[in-house]
Amino acid sequence: MYDTQILSRIAEVAEKKTSIPAYPESVQRVLSAVQQSSAYWDIVSQAEEPVPLTAEILNLLRQEGLIQVEEEMFFLTGEGVAFCKENHIRFSGVRACPFCEGRALDIQPYSDTLEAFEEIVKQRPPALQAYDQGFVTPRTTVARVAHMDFRGDLRGKALLILGDDDLVSVAAGISSLPSHICLIEVDSRLTSFVRSVSREYHLKIEVVEQDLRQPLPSFLLGRFDTFEMDPVESRKGFELFLQRGLGGLKGPRKAGYFGLTRLESSLDKWWDFQQVLLKNRAVITDIYPGFNQYALWDYHSQTRAARLAPVPQMPKNIWYTSYWFRIETLKGFQPTNVPFTEPKEVLYADEESSTT
Amino acid sequence: MYDTQILSRIAEVAEKKTSIPAYPESVQRVLSAVQQSSAYWDIVSQAEEPVPLTAEILNLLRQEGLIQVEEEMFFLTGEGVAFCKENHIRFSGVRACPFCEGRALDIQPYSDTLEAFEEIVKQRPPALQAYDQGFVTPRTTVARVAHMDFRGDLRGKALLILGDDDLVSVAAGISSLPSHICLIEVDSRLTSFVRSVSREYHLKIEVVEQDLRQPLPSFLLGRFDTFEMDPVESRKGFELFLQRGLGGLKGPRKAGYFGLTRLESSLDKWWDFQQVLLKNRAVITDIYPGFNQYALWDYHSQTRAARLAPVPQMPKNIWYTSYWFRIETLKGFQPTNVPFTEPKEVLYADEESSTT
Repeated sequence: MYDTQILSRIAEVAEKKTSIPAYPESVQRVLSAVQQSSAYWDIVSQAEEPVPLTAEILNLLRQEGLIQVEEEMFFLTGEGVAFCKENHIRFSGVRACPFCEGRALDIQPYSDTLEAFEEIVKQRPPALQAYDQGFVTPRTTVARVAHMDFRGDLRGKALLILGDDDLVSVAAGISSLPSHICLIEVDSRLTSFVRSVSREYHLKIEVVEQDLRQPLPSFLLGRFDTFEMDPVESRKGFELFLQRGLGGLKGPRKAGYFGLTRLESSLDKWWDFQQVLLKNRAVITDIYPGFNQYALWDYHSQTRAARLAPVPQMPKNIWYTSYWFRIETLKGFQPTNVPFTEPKEVLYADEESSTT
Repeated sequence: MYDTQILSRIAEVAEKKTSIPAYPESVQRVLSAVQQSSAYWDIVSQAEEPVPLTAEILNLLRQEGLIQVEEEMFFLTGEGVAFCKENHIRFSGVRACPFCEGRALDIQPYSDTLEAFEEIVKQRPPALQAYDQGFVTPRTTVARVAHMDFRGDLRGKALLILGDDDLVSVAAGISSLPSHICLIEVDSRLTSFVRSVSREYHLKIEVVEQDLRQPLPSFLLGRFDTFEMDPVESRKGFELFLQRGLGGLKGPRKAGYFGLTRLESSLDKWWDFQQVLLKNRAVITDIYPGFNQYALWDYHSQTRAARLAPVPQMPKNIWYTSYWFRIETLKGFQPTNVPFTEPKEVLYADEESSTT
């Protein structure tokens, strides 16, 4: 009855237009998302495809008459409803655990840390587009620290943080559990803020103001049990961040934590990231979808994501989330420590990115 | 004050004795576990190292005078307490979310399925050592089905199950959400049980009695959206199960689900597993530690794990857990479908296995 080739055709056109790998399943994901929500940014969030791809697929589905826009909201047309039914395109009946918000942890032991942290971050500097900033909610930051503790990588351990608009260094400092905390950060607003908080609350955070494109200073090489970062998601950017994190570790069986999104990176790019991890003798031990929830950020309207949006809506709810990874190093692990010499643009943006 | 080389020395000896990769961190993990629990099987569970390695490390720590055994329970000696303090070896203050048991899902929508499933499994055949069986708790089985739904891989989808002492086929059948369910299983007790349950409850499960060492029958090749399995954890065994699962999938961007333990497999072996996944153009999207909880099984006393135990205790609590993986296939994905021609022993056991 219906032309099921339509999914392949839309995927093909969308891939050509965006240069992002697209599949019939990408189109299905967008159709599922429209069944769950009508607001653009919620659809983007639920589809879990790179933002430019979801935007393009929505445009194409509209041209094909499967969805329509009314007062800036997206709905299936009658034809769209029939098409989804015919092709078994439905949405999930399960949601994340409401108690832990899908993070699988009981962060109750960290409730005092969370309370103190929420007070401190009222004074934080706003997120800056120039550094691809955009911070997670306070609860997310504290959950990251709790997760490191859960996995035995926090108490009595030396913790290296690479870039920290999320202020993990501060939350870890409040917990007073690590033996040592070191933050490397390029943004002087953040280094000043963390230094002043560290002084005021006696958190003993070592702050090094440095661009990660430079090699790690030798006094930080091989000194840490655990690193944490929220890397930029170009292939080169991820590899650079990872090299710096691994360079800080004492050796094998030490842990690294980082976030990766589906909204800036296709699963094809994730595959490349995972190759880089294995190549560096790191094994993936944990991946929690939706662990990191990002607060709405001030420069949203200046992003490519906003420019690509088919409707001029601003996000009303948290829409940008990322997966939370834990890795461990193994025998044979040998990090490098060389400068990044390519142009800065290569680091921050690629065809899949849209919020940098 | 204390000889910190002791951790390296114990790791070295333990590795030599067991042929399993061991690290100073492996020894630390066992010392952490002894601080949390005194019962042998709980220590094994918390240490998250291959069972034969934990057993050996406990023996060596005892010889070194850092732990002692009293009435079959393990404790740090005074020297052990001082050593752990000196070397910052502590245990976590965080536990898994009690609401979802660390599975990150709200399985409330599946409570009717769980209730019906618990009734049905009262008649299930007991786990058989010959097939490396040992089933998860009913709540775990239903959580697997809920997780597939959460990730959009169940409703209206064709589901292939490879080996099923966990009876995922039955739970998925009760949910009545998949468009098709097919089970491949070698054990005629299980195929009979699933067939009779399927008939009685109108679950429409297709049951194929076949050894996975044989290629997939052509009528199952490329037919499914999703596969599920609990593979044996030898390198060859994992690769075989994976080939059969991938062979059943329709193409790229289809999903696979499986469990992997830390108790039968070192992280070094995990690295090999992850290489095999990437080589097959599959990307890892989810890894939930501790998702799968295994019910105690009847043949425990006949296992290598039981023979290696330094004390003759039987497990009292659930101690055997595994991580739950989700993968997705990508462009370039090309499964093979060839028979497994090596001896059967290669499939089930290696130096790290102990419960097969």
